[in-house]
Amino acid sequence: MSGAGPISRLVDEFARLPGIGPKTAQRLAFHVLNAPPEMARGLARALVEAREKICRCSECCDLTDSDPCPICRDPRRNREILCVVEQPRDVIAMEKSRGFKGLYHVLHGAISPMVGIGPGDLTVRDLLERLAGKNVREVILATNPNVEGDATALYLARLIKPAGIKVTRIAHGLPVGASLEYADEMTLSKALEGRQELG
Amino acid sequence: MSGAGPISRLVDEFARLPGIGPKTAQRLAFHVLNAPPEMARGLARALVEAREKICRCSECCDLTDSDPCPICRDPRRNREILCVVEQPRDVIAMEKSRGFKGLYHVLHGAISPMVGIGPGDLTVRDLLERLAGKNVREVILATNPNVEGDATALYLARLIKPAGIKVTRIAHGLPVGASLEYADEMTLSKALEGRQELG
Repeated sequence: MSGAGPISRLVDEFARLPGIGPKTAQRLAFHVLNAPPEMARGLARALVEAREKICRCSECCDLTDSDPCPICRDPRRNREILCVVEQPRDVIAMEKSRGFKGLYHVLHGAISPMVGIGPGDLTVRDLLERLAGKNVREVILATNPNVEGDATALYLARLIKPAGIKVTRIAHGLPVGASLEYADEMTLSKALEGRQELG
Repeated sequence: MSGAGPISRLVDEFARLPGIGPKTAQRLAFHVLNAPPEMARGLARALVEAREKICRCSECCDLTDSDPCPICRDPRRNREILCVVEQPRDVIAMEKSRGFKGLYHVLHGAISPMVGIGPGDLTVRDLLERLAGKNVREVILATNPNVEGDATALYLARLIKPAGIKVTRIAHGLPVGASLEYADEMTLSKALEGRQELG
């Protein structure tokens, strides 16, 4: 094995994924080559299918393969409470905690002047349009408890409060500086219960 | 995003790769979904292509997309010296050290009674047939310097020596218990120079 060929192309493609260095990419490539062909085909199919079928839900902006997404479609969810999160993975984390029965809004990021992400790069406009049209009683800001997440929450609170909607911030039951994605389900539940109305 | 769908299928497929846990799989899946579609398609194509085109070289048993492989085909390589390694990735590591100009033989593993890998699971028979037919003067055993690699080297030495072929073991310039794959190129070169004839 040497030079440019199907193996090194596969190694290169793996190495383009985040957190996968050249050695890990090589290890993954050789694993796939030694595994039954179904493994390579299964991953290839899942990649193409996911990339083709997945779009943003026209209501909550979460990633979904059916629009509106299953959560927005679910008649048992409380439509008066919106939980605003940064990423689709945060919706998964919240759903696992089973502590929330309202709807979501996915920002697809947080305001971060350092890396040039402003409100226009997020789904802030969609959120405001959504709030204007529907009878939302409370907006829970569940952005990450770090600098960017806190700034985003403050920014949204100032936009939403004038409309007379109750705005709360998820409680800092989470260790400060941590990431919502890695919180355990109990901590997430506790943080949700202890939410406080914003200034 | 919830339940079974293209996203969770993609997460599951990533999680089947070695060393990729559920959180990392989720992170990779969402990265692919946020990246340009070319990324998903590129990885998918590389997977299918590599799995379809790659076979074992009929001479050295290394993985290749052309049989015999480029190294076995290369007229400048010294056909009198064979370097026996455990895995295709070890060939890559050896080639990077530029210390070896002979041919390789890839065992695709090491003898390990603990996990039920015996000589019959490796390419030992191919190696012996190869040695019977060709004028090989020396066999360098470059299996990993750990229990399984040492046992495999001893086993092969006992099989090959009666045929009157010089059998050497790569020097323990490598830290004992380490893996060939992660050695730096200088260490690998030194280990090759300091090789010792076996028993």
